Amino acid sequence: MYRTHDCGSLRVSDVNKEVTLSGWVQKSRDKGFMIWVDLRDRYGITQLIFDEDRTDETVMKTAQTLGREYVIQVKGTVIERESKNAKIPTGDVEILVKELKILSASKTPPFTIEDETDGGEELRMKYRYLDIRRNPVRENLIFRSKVAMQVRNFLASKDFVEVETPVLIKSTPEGARDFVVPSRMNEGQFYALPQSPQTFKQLLMVGGLDKYFQIVKCFRDEDLRADRQPEFTQIDCEMSFVEQEDVLNIFEEMTRHLLKEVKNVQVDKFPRMTYQEAMEKYGNDKPDIRFGMEFGDLSAFAKARDFKIFNEAEIVVGIAVPGAASMTRKEIDKLIDWVKRPQVGALGMVYVKCNEDGSFKSSVDKFYSQEDLAQWAEATGAQTGDLICVLSGPTNKTRTQLSALRMEMAERLGLRNPEEFAPLWVIDFPLLEWDEDTERYHAMHHPFTSPKPEDIEKLSTDPGNVRANAYDLVLNGNEIGGGSVRIFDKELQALMFDHLGFTPEEARAQFGFLMDAFEYGAPPHAGLAFGFDRLVSILGGQETIRDFIAFPKNNSGRDVMIDAPAAIDQEQLQELNLKVTVE
Amino acid sequence: MYRTHDCGSLRVSDVNKEVTLSGWVQKSRDKGFMIWVDLRDRYGITQLIFDEDRTDETVMKTAQTLGREYVIQVKGTVIERESKNAKIPTGDVEILVKELKILSASKTPPFTIEDETDGGEELRMKYRYLDIRRNPVRENLIFRSKVAMQVRNFLASKDFVEVETPVLIKSTPEGARDFVVPSRMNEGQFYALPQSPQTFKQLLMVGGLDKYFQIVKCFRDEDLRADRQPEFTQIDCEMSFVEQEDVLNIFEEMTRHLLKEVKNVQVDKFPRMTYQEAMEKYGNDKPDIRFGMEFGDLSAFAKARDFKIFNEAEIVVGIAVPGAASMTRKEIDKLIDWVKRPQVGALGMVYVKCNEDGSFKSSVDKFYSQEDLAQWAEATGAQTGDLICVLSGPTNKTRTQLSALRMEMAERLGLRNPEEFAPLWVIDFPLLEWDEDTERYHAMHHPFTSPKPEDIEKLSTDPGNVRANAYDLVLNGNEIGGGSVRIFDKELQALMFDHLGFTPEEARAQFGFLMDAFEYGAPPHAGLAFGFDRLVSILGGQETIRDFIAFPKNNSGRDVMIDAPAAIDQEQLQELNLKVTVE
Repeated sequence: MYRTHDCGSLRVSDVNKEVTLSGWVQKSRDKGFMIWVDLRDRYGITQLIFDEDRTDETVMKTAQTLGREYVIQVKGTVIERESKNAKIPTGDVEILVKELKILSASKTPPFTIEDETDGGEELRMKYRYLDIRRNPVRENLIFRSKVAMQVRNFLASKDFVEVETPVLIKSTPEGARDFVVPSRMNEGQFYALPQSPQTFKQLLMVGGLDKYFQIVKCFRDEDLRADRQPEFTQIDCEMSFVEQEDVLNIFEEMTRHLLKEVKNVQVDKFPRMTYQEAMEKYGNDKPDIRFGMEFGDLSAFAKARDFKIFNEAEIVVGIAVPGAASMTRKEIDKLIDWVKRPQVGALGMVYVKCNEDGSFKSSVDKFYSQEDLAQWAEATGAQTGDLICVLSGPTNKTRTQLSALRMEMAERLGLRNPEEFAPLWVIDFPLLEWDEDTERYHAMHHPFTSPKPEDIEKLSTDPGNVRANAYDLVLNGNEIGGGSVRIFDKELQALMFDHLGFTPEEARAQFGFLMDAFEYGAPPHAGLAFGFDRLVSILGGQETIRDFIAFPKNNSGRDVMIDAPAAIDQEQLQELNLKVTVE
Repeated sequence: MYRTHDCGSLRVSDVNKEVTLSGWVQKSRDKGFMIWVDLRDRYGITQLIFDEDRTDETVMKTAQTLGREYVIQVKGTVIERESKNAKIPTGDVEILVKELKILSASKTPPFTIEDETDGGEELRMKYRYLDIRRNPVRENLIFRSKVAMQVRNFLASKDFVEVETPVLIKSTPEGARDFVVPSRMNEGQFYALPQSPQTFKQLLMVGGLDKYFQIVKCFRDEDLRADRQPEFTQIDCEMSFVEQEDVLNIFEEMTRHLLKEVKNVQVDKFPRMTYQEAMEKYGNDKPDIRFGMEFGDLSAFAKARDFKIFNEAEIVVGIAVPGAASMTRKEIDKLIDWVKRPQVGALGMVYVKCNEDGSFKSSVDKFYSQEDLAQWAEATGAQTGDLICVLSGPTNKTRTQLSALRMEMAERLGLRNPEEFAPLWVIDFPLLEWDEDTERYHAMHHPFTSPKPEDIEKLSTDPGNVRANAYDLVLNGNEIGGGSVRIFDKELQALMFDHLGFTPEEARAQFGFLMDAFEYGAPPHAGLAFGFDRLVSILGGQETIRDFIAFPKNNSGRDVMIDAPAAIDQEQLQELNLKVTVE
């Protein structure tokens, strides 16, 4: 037997027990006549002591050779420590070692196996199996496992059935983003990996399964931004005979349950906000509402004077940054440089300091009176000591810029507390969005999302203003879930494909099986999918999903540990009837 | 709201309630003045009644148009039925309908949505979403979900952490069976889909995770036999600081737990049998021990006479088929034809009838005395009334043939009761097996399996007889799980690669990252993987895994519902730098 106890379980009540422990050498202090070793495993650290008066000489000698990360097995007696360590649960005891066996030696690890390591990200990825030994990474993985368990138990308690949908499927119209898999048995043909199990979960509803979920890997072959992965995990859900309200209620309950179970945080009923309102108040369809700084629309007041820039702008909009009136001229200039960075893209920024004495000092004092500025302060909710930051320009662009500024100021002011959780439903998303490249409307969510019945007639006259029965769940400024009420009527589905620019033939080629299914009694249904990686990282109080994935890929989609992807041999290519057209 | 109740929940205690139900029309009986409709959903069937005296005329008219599989919503009053149906839980009540809405019409389904359908397999696969509406298919999917839940809760209670390992990995030496995925971002390179997460789970052990599991999709691009799928699901497990005994105990406990929870079957400690013993007694490394018919080795007695066929055979071996002495000559001739079929491959069969009067009648009476045959009866455990079937020839081949005959006779005699569960551990598998094609030894399990320490020296002298610390869990004649104690020493791993015919360079190219990991303190570890599809189907009392997969592929690896795989367009191929070399 390799161990009688793990390294986290021995206490004073175990004193005098003969025990066997196994684990890794965290560190070792050799005083010659005495050697202390911290022995580590997943469950904790236990101190070992080798004492020349009480430990066999050959054991002492072996103990002297132990390096960091050696795997050892020891037998010994639990004794009470003279100098206790209150920081760890096993800190009252140590093991007086009688037998020692080296199970595996270790080279010096390329970075320290400590909570704060000296290893850079690339190095830690290459040796991910060592990185996982560090408490923060291991705890993240265990946390992820716990969240998944809670999700499953909650959904099972609500009669949801977990069904595994296929991974080898068919390429869809957004095909450019599909990973494909050549088939050896079906020459010249390809499977595709799913971007989501969307059509399959709808077919399960047509199949009468009523309530489906799945925690499932999905795949997207797109250029990777900082925090995207080519393979990612969704909590995918679908329900039949429900309306939007039912879906919102059950997943709100689930999210509340998670916050309670894994964070011990109690959250009230989630606020709801229309997409329109979110854009007006926060310039963002996933607003972080842990803090205020709501937008004030200053267009009416600001355009009433002779300031040309504002007068020519479509919108003038500002936020009150709490306590920022104390910023120096230099600091404000730097902030103006910040909003002018290409990533933000503003042309400039007007500011107003709300002085302690109730007066205002602005960068546009030439054009606006104290009374004018008082109006601005009212519209932005600015208090004494605040700094009002004002941007202007085309409506959408300006709101996006101000949203970036709002988030930046919140970050600087420490208002984005990762242990505070502010969920929010954003509803009534537009059904369609205009795509400049292809010069046509695309489905904002996906082609199966149902328009609001009262907006259907606008499909021909004013497509951009048709609202969908679509909703996002937002947590701390991140979209953690999104879904919609689906179309279940084949006529309406055909109309949608038509508006999305599919010919009937194209629609049939791509979605024939779904449209066929709708011919045989499709129930009303609706669903939602959570981005599981993101959900876990936010619940875990961190921003980077990579920290919650056991073996993540880097920004080029490479696994640097196993060195994948890689070339395959000619024989394999021939079997697949493929030729690579680059070197 | 689409419903106040589902179709399985109303009882006599609900009489007089006003309810709303939604579901599918299972069937409809129209007597003109009265129409009865069976309304179905996942939860059950509720009878609706439309009565011209009590139901509005327009509602009556709409009700007349209802066809099978229409999706409807009704409002009405729960009333007590005059003629009750004791077969269903809702059989005491019916709904007197006041309002009726057709949510979706349906064409006549291509096969009946009944427990016993008239649809053939191919048709049911094409319309799988309709097949899923049938009770047996739906119940199988729900059953699968329950088994997964029980597995997860059991393993979590034992401190196992579920970790998602990557799907986009690297092609391995058994590369011919890998599905590959061309990478767009890494030109000319390919990911591979995992045949199992083997190396990743070992790396998680090196990473100190201690106990890992995952219910995970795996992929194998091999020619599909009747009941194989290109994508299949494993319960994949690994533990550190354990010996074989620990692994056997915990997964025996898990299997016992499953049998108790999902089948209410109590099973005692699982018997254990060495591979050697299994081959000798059953000619099979996954013997079905729900019934006897153990092999009797007759070589010693049978070769002592002048029967040339036996004298020239390496082995003479028989089974006693219970009660089969009553078979007619014609029936026995047919059985002899059966063993001669190419699928079995025997050259002939000798038989002995154990007559009621204690005498024997055999097909080789010319060569063997009654006393000789009495020895045969003793060796095979034959009783009065049994038929002893004897095969002879080369040892391995003959045992395999007799195993096939044993299974066939058990099937004919109804001894393979799907509601009886007889688990069994088969242990001490050979480490290597000889491959005729490549003329070299291959790892029987995989290259990371550890040899038994006492057999290591035979690696050079007698490799075929080196036993491994490898084990299979067998249930009712099916291998439902298999695993091994792993090599965790880099020298031993290098030795193994050498014996498997890898050059050091090849080993490094394929498994460099694992061998590197072993340089940094690898713990002893061992694991096991269950074939989840198979496990679920056997627990479900059925033999076909396809019946427990929501959207299975056919024997050509095709999904006939979505028509995948399929050609992809030229643009997609170009982006991937690929050219297809067939039409």
